[in-house]
Order: sequence, then structure tokens, then C-alpha cells
Amino acid sequence: MTGARELSGGLDAILHARSVAVVGASASPDKVGHFLLANIINGGYEGRVYPINPKASEILGLRAYPALSDVPEPVDLAVIAIPAILVPATLREAVAVGVRGAVVISGGFREAGHADLEAEVASIVRASGLRLIGPNCQGINYRPNKLCATWPLLTASGPFAVVSQSGTVAAAMAGWAVEEGLGISATVSLGNQVDLSETDMLDFFASDPATRAVAFYLEGVQDGRRFIQVLRRVAPQKPILILKSGCTSGGQRAAASHTRSLAGRDEVFGAVCRQFGAVRVPDLQSLYDDSKALGLMSPPRGNRLLVVTSSGGSGILAVDEAERHGLEVPALSSALIADLQAADVPATSVLANPLDLTMCTAANYDAALSAVIRHDVADAYLVIFGDPIPGAAEVVKRLRARTQAGVAVAFLGGGEVERAELPLMHAAGVPVFPTPERAVRAIASAVWWSTRFPRTGA
Amino acid sequence: MTGARELSGGLDAILHARSVAVVGASASPDKVGHFLLANIINGGYEGRVYPINPKASEILGLRAYPALSDVPEPVDLAVIAIPAILVPATLREAVAVGVRGAVVISGGFREAGHADLEAEVASIVRASGLRLIGPNCQGINYRPNKLCATWPLLTASGPFAVVSQSGTVAAAMAGWAVEEGLGISATVSLGNQVDLSETDMLDFFASDPATRAVAFYLEGVQDGRRFIQVLRRVAPQKPILILKSGCTSGGQRAAASHTRSLAGRDEVFGAVCRQFGAVRVPDLQSLYDDSKALGLMSPPRGNRLLVVTSSGGSGILAVDEAERHGLEVPALSSALIADLQAADVPATSVLANPLDLTMCTAANYDAALSAVIRHDVADAYLVIFGDPIPGAAEVVKRLRARTQAGVAVAFLGGGEVERAELPLMHAAGVPVFPTPERAVRAIASAVWWSTRFPRTGA
Repeated sequence: MTGARELSGGLDAILHARSVAVVGASASPDKVGHFLLANIINGGYEGRVYPINPKASEILGLRAYPALSDVPEPVDLAVIAIPAILVPATLREAVAVGVRGAVVISGGFREAGHADLEAEVASIVRASGLRLIGPNCQGINYRPNKLCATWPLLTASGPFAVVSQSGTVAAAMAGWAVEEGLGISATVSLGNQVDLSETDMLDFFASDPATRAVAFYLEGVQDGRRFIQVLRRVAPQKPILILKSGCTSGGQRAAASHTRSLAGRDEVFGAVCRQFGAVRVPDLQSLYDDSKALGLMSPPRGNRLLVVTSSGGSGILAVDEAERHGLEVPALSSALIADLQAADVPATSVLANPLDLTMCTAANYDAALSAVIRHDVADAYLVIFGDPIPGAAEVVKRLRARTQAGVAVAFLGGGEVERAELPLMHAAGVPVFPTPERAVRAIASAVWWSTRFPRTGA
Repeated sequence: MTGARELSGGLDAILHARSVAVVGASASPDKVGHFLLANIINGGYEGRVYPINPKASEILGLRAYPALSDVPEPVDLAVIAIPAILVPATLREAVAVGVRGAVVISGGFREAGHADLEAEVASIVRASGLRLIGPNCQGINYRPNKLCATWPLLTASGPFAVVSQSGTVAAAMAGWAVEEGLGISATVSLGNQVDLSETDMLDFFASDPATRAVAFYLEGVQDGRRFIQVLRRVAPQKPILILKSGCTSGGQRAAASHTRSLAGRDEVFGAVCRQFGAVRVPDLQSLYDDSKALGLMSPPRGNRLLVVTSSGGSGILAVDEAERHGLEVPALSSALIADLQAADVPATSVLANPLDLTMCTAANYDAALSAVIRHDVADAYLVIFGDPIPGAAEVVKRLRARTQAGVAVAFLGGGEVERAELPLMHAAGVPVFPTPERAVRAIASAVWWSTRFPRTGA
């Protein structure tokens, strides 16, 4: 096996490929080889694209070639969607013509009882410089290279990458992010990991400037020792979030059927995460919520939370959840209360923490938050909009520009206004959650990570 | 105080009102009295509507009257949105002209330090037959009477009612339900509960045929003894879901500022729920998810769960969560496996529980589920669609028609197809969740309630 440096180089050849061949490209709209090619084209990829199909001369407006060896120019990356039995020969051809990376979508290997075919692929990879993702995967999407070699087609760039042993989990995470006006930096579906593994992805995304947080869905780890080595180096630099399944005996049996992963003892995995500073999340909803929070928020320097709300009930729910997760909800100083009394907030406001502005406007939030940020009261702000409040996005955009504390939003009960303001908030770098408790849990994860690895200097 | 029977009658006068006056109706679009009137009109209300405003002759196309006493016809319900100081006189006038119910939106009573004003309202209510919701509330929406005297405007009818000490929580729950093509039967914002309380709502909705489950957000309970009496009678008949805040010391302080509720000891409240069979939920997301499940699903007769999926990873996450919540994930019998082997499912399928159909179509789901329902394998089915699978809604609609087991769906990674199928599933009476774990938790709540109160007969 090669070292970490070269592995990083290997993944570069795939994600930063300057030309891509789609082996198994098809003109039939229901074929994987069709929508892979279509998504690469429609995803904005700026390199050369070569459909490979022995029976077509043109697909989706591009000249097609019978085989990789017929392409007259250098191919960096081969994306392969053909029957498993044909994959080894194609990979040998790819190696022969100088292809540097492969993403093998095709299933029908170890997971289907064909360990022999998978061993053949492994030996080709070992004997050559070729680096490979898969087989039996759902491809990759890497927005810095505008390369969407997966499905669905998603093109919006956002703050976090998703690395997953489940294509569905990657697609779901990316889909939610795009739906909310957020986007993703990358998705990688790991598949059977005959070559590149979760640890290679950890290594790559640690130094990827487009990626502020990395979300993993794992059923097991290929090489525990190396994973820990890389995690120990990476976790202090960039938030790593891990959803690991197969936590129960039933889940472990199911995982064994799915990717033949050895789930290992769940407590051991949990202890490794805690010790080295990966945020281990309990479920898929939390993986998404926490990735959003850690990908967007300024790292809180402590655990003090201030809640500002138009909804008294939502404020209480937030405080309950904060206390459950070890966040401090400090009382307001008399100086801050005096400033708030002088500010343009409703007379019915409850000047405490939660700061309940009751029936109020965006201007009232602005006034309250302007007073608040003059005092060192909190390391993170949760701003709850519990009504249709036009201008809410501008409020949190201004707040974020004026504070080093973390800022997150819960928006609920806001109907059309909420739907309009939410993507503007994400565009302004403020994560938005639909319930107070989900917002607080995400803030608590951000606090856990950032207080474990305090930033030095400003 | 009057007994439960008459109280029910009292709420009838409000929710089934045949004519409504909006006191404080306004032509200014930013006034509460404007959008209350507009929502009543646009919500489809079929009774007479009378705007009351001393300075207008017509509002939103309706003839306006200076005062309640000027309305020439009987008024059943007065919806009141005027300054608090004017409310007592208006209520006296309402009583004098025979108004039977009032919803007082206006704030500025006990919650704002004006206990005297609230006491005055209470004494008017006590001395008359008038029944009152509020003050300091966000109104009511009762779809059987097409009466939306609240905001936002929501008109879709669905399976559950929301009763809430927070207007925002009610609006959020209803908003999510409508957004998902589901709808609600009713929302009631309780406000200060000077007359009608959470227990009256429990009593009313227990026998409301449009309501299959009742979701409560509570900060405290007005009269614990009566609440328990009614709960004990109602809980076996209809699922009651309760989110109670003020669970922590910080939350209790905040609740005291919000509605001056005495939160009481949290463990006591939890014990009451367990003993009498209310589903107590941990957070707002669960209140919504569980209300959806219990409002739509056939009650599972036991705790056996079968998971059918196109996504291996999602299946494992579901099984992990099932085991955590005490659901059984039984192995498939050899007879069922033989039936599945003969069915039109992909050769790559994993014939176990989870039943992983891998890369598959709606027809494959149909084939698998047709085989499954011939065997007594589960009390609830979780069908996971982990890809864009057109026709998914038809699959679960057919399944629901052919089984008495509970049916729920997790749909994720499905992009446009998912967005199109989801409301069709809700229209077919099948609850859909965005993650496997959220679906399993909602199923577990349904199992908890339905096995605690087993149905007799078919």
C-alpha cells in the first residue's frame, strides 16, 4: 500500500480529473449510463467528456467511442457502469491507456457473492497506479471541479462534504442541503472500497478548501489503526461528523449483509470518536443538522447560549434542550437589561434568557440584538422566529457580521415568509432549523467540537 | 364550575359557531384584526361574518358595525382583537346580546402583569353562560366548520388536532401538515385559559369525529385532578400525544415567565402519562411525527416490524432504531423466503429483515409486498424508498388496502420523484418520514399506544 500523501494524490486524480470517460454511456434514458453522462454534462463540468459505447457513434450530442483505447486524447477518469463481469477487462484497458482514476458504479462483486471478481479488481489496482472508488457505489459529486458523476443531479455548492457507505444517505443529505438553498461541497459514495477507503476521504477533505465540515455515514472502518491516525490529525482542524450504523445486534447482522462491514464493538467506536474529537451523531437527522451547523457557524468559544425569540413556548423548549445538553443559559446582567429597556423592543418583552420579544418585527430583533452584542453574554446565539417575520434573514445576516459568537436560527410557524427567508439565511451563512430542539442540539455539537479544540488568536 | 358535559357544549358554541363577529376588524393589512377577518373569509367559512369597528362601514367587502349590539342578527362567536383594557366592556356587551362564545386574541392580561384585568374577564365568564378561549392566544382553526380564526391561513383537512399553550407551536404543526399534503382537523391556541382549558379540549376532541389523534403542547396543567380523570377516559379511545416543556430547572423558570404555568415535577407528569396511556414525546419534531403516525396508521397489534427497502444503509439505520425502541425485527420464515424467491424481485435482493430489494422499481416492491402479506410476519411495515422511485405512492396505497398491519414510509434520496409522491402517500393515509429513524420512532409510539389499549374484534 502507498502512503497517505500519494493516496491524497490518487483521489485528486479522480475528483480533479480534467477529462472523463463514461464507460457504459447509453442513449436509453432509464439506464444508469445515461443519467450519469447527462448529469456530468448538465452539472457544468468543464473538462472533456467521452461516452464509451461499442454500439453508438454519438450520445447526448457528444461523439462516442467503442472503447477507452479509441479515445484520441488522454483520459484522467473513467466512470464505469457496465456488467460486473466486464469490469476487470475495462480496468486493464484503462491502465494500458494511462487512465489515472476510476469510479466503478457497477454492482455484482463481493456484495453479491462474487468475491473472485472483486479480488481481480483489487489485483489490477495493486499492480498499477490506478486509483479506484467502488465498485458497487453511487459515484461522486465534487463541486470545485463541477463534476457530478452520480445521481440525482445537484449543482449548488455548500459548506460540507458527505462520504457514505450508502448511496441513498449521500443523495439524501445532498438533496436536503440543496432544497434548503445550502448545497454541498462534495458527495462520495464509497461502495465496496476495494481501493480508496473512508480514511482516504478523511485525508483528502481535511485539506480541501471548499469543505468546512465532513459528514460520514459508515457501517464499519477498513483499517482501524490508520483511521485513528488520520482522525487524530484531522479532527482538530476541521469538524468530522460520523453516523455509524450497526450499533445494535440486529443492525450488525443487517450491516453484514449490506456491505460485509465488520461493525466492530459499538462502544469502542464511540470511545475512539470521543477521544480523538469526531462528533458522533445518533441518527441521520442529526448528521444533517450537525453538518449544517458545523459547516456554517463560527466556532463558539464556550458553552453559554442566549436565546432570542418571538415565541415564548419555543424559547422554553430551547432552554430545556440546552440544559439537557450541558449548555449554560446565563441570566442577563442588569447593564444589559437596562440597554434592552432603552431599545426599541415591545413593552411586553420578557427581558431574560430566553429573551422573549413576544409579538415583534425584524426591527425589534435588530434593536434587541444590537444591545445584546455590546455585552459579553454568550458564545452562541439562537435566534428563534416563531411567526411570519419579513426581513428575518437581514437580521441574522447583520448579527453574523457583527459578532464572533456562533449564530443559529430556528424558524417555525412562519408560512410563506419562512419559506422565503430560509434560503437567504443559508446564503448568509446562518444555519436554520425547523424546531428549537434541533437547533440547540446542533449548537451543542458545535460547542463540543470547538471547545475541545479551542482556536488560538482572534 | 360546570361539568364535563356542559363544557363540551361550551366549546361547541365556539368551534361550531354558525355566525362570527370579529371585534377589532381592521382594513389595515398589518393589523391582527385584518388578517383574522381575511382568514375567516378565505378559509371557507360558510356562516355569517360581521366585522366590528366603530370607524368603518365596510371591511373586506363585508358590512361593518360599530359594536356587537349593532349587529341585527344573532352572533354565536365573538373573535376579539382589541386592546386589553377594552375587552371586559366588550365581553359584557357580548353577554348582553346573547353571544355564546368568545375567542380573545388580545394580550396584556396576567402575562403582562395585569392580573386585575384577567380577574375581571374571569368574573364576567363565571357570571354568564359565555364560554371563552384565551385571552392572549392565537385563535382557533376548526376545519369541520371551515372556521380559520387564526393565522396563518390553513384550509387542508387532516387527521389530527393541535392544542397548544404556544400559538407558534400550533401554527408550526399545522403548517408542516399542510406543506406535506396532510392537513389538520383543528388547532386551538389556549392562551391564558381563564375559562376553557386543555382538559376541556381533551374532552371535546375525544368525541370529535374529524380528529383521529390529539397533539398537545403544554407548559403546565390547570387542574391536575380533572385532567387525569378525563385522560383516563379518553386515552384508550384516541391517541393523545403530549409535549410538555419546562422539564428542566431553566425551562421551568422560562415557563413561569411565559404563561405563568406551574410546570410541576416533571417525573410526576411523566408517570401520569405512562399510567393513563398518553404518549409523551421528547421534542417538537416527535410531536409532529408521532401525531402523523397515530393519526394515520392502523393500530399495530404487536411490536413486530418488517422493513422493506431499496437502500441497505437505510435498512440498517431502521433496525438499529427499532432495537433501541423495543420493536422486534423478526427473521423471515423459510416459507416466506421461498415465496420471495419466486417473486419478481431483483436477483441481488437480500431476503431477510430488512428486506433489501437493492436497485429496484415500484413493481418489485409490489411483488415483494404481495408475498409478504400472505404471511403473518409483522404488525407494522416500514417501507423505505431510498431512490427516485416513480409509483411509490401506488405501492403503499395498495399495501394499506390489503393489510391490517400499520404501514409507514421513509422516503429519502428521491429528489423530484420524492416530492411528487409524498403528498400522494399522505392522501392515501400513509405517513411519510424523511429518515428511517424518525419513521421507526413514530411507529414505536403507535405500537406503545395500540398494544396498551388492544382493539377487540377485527
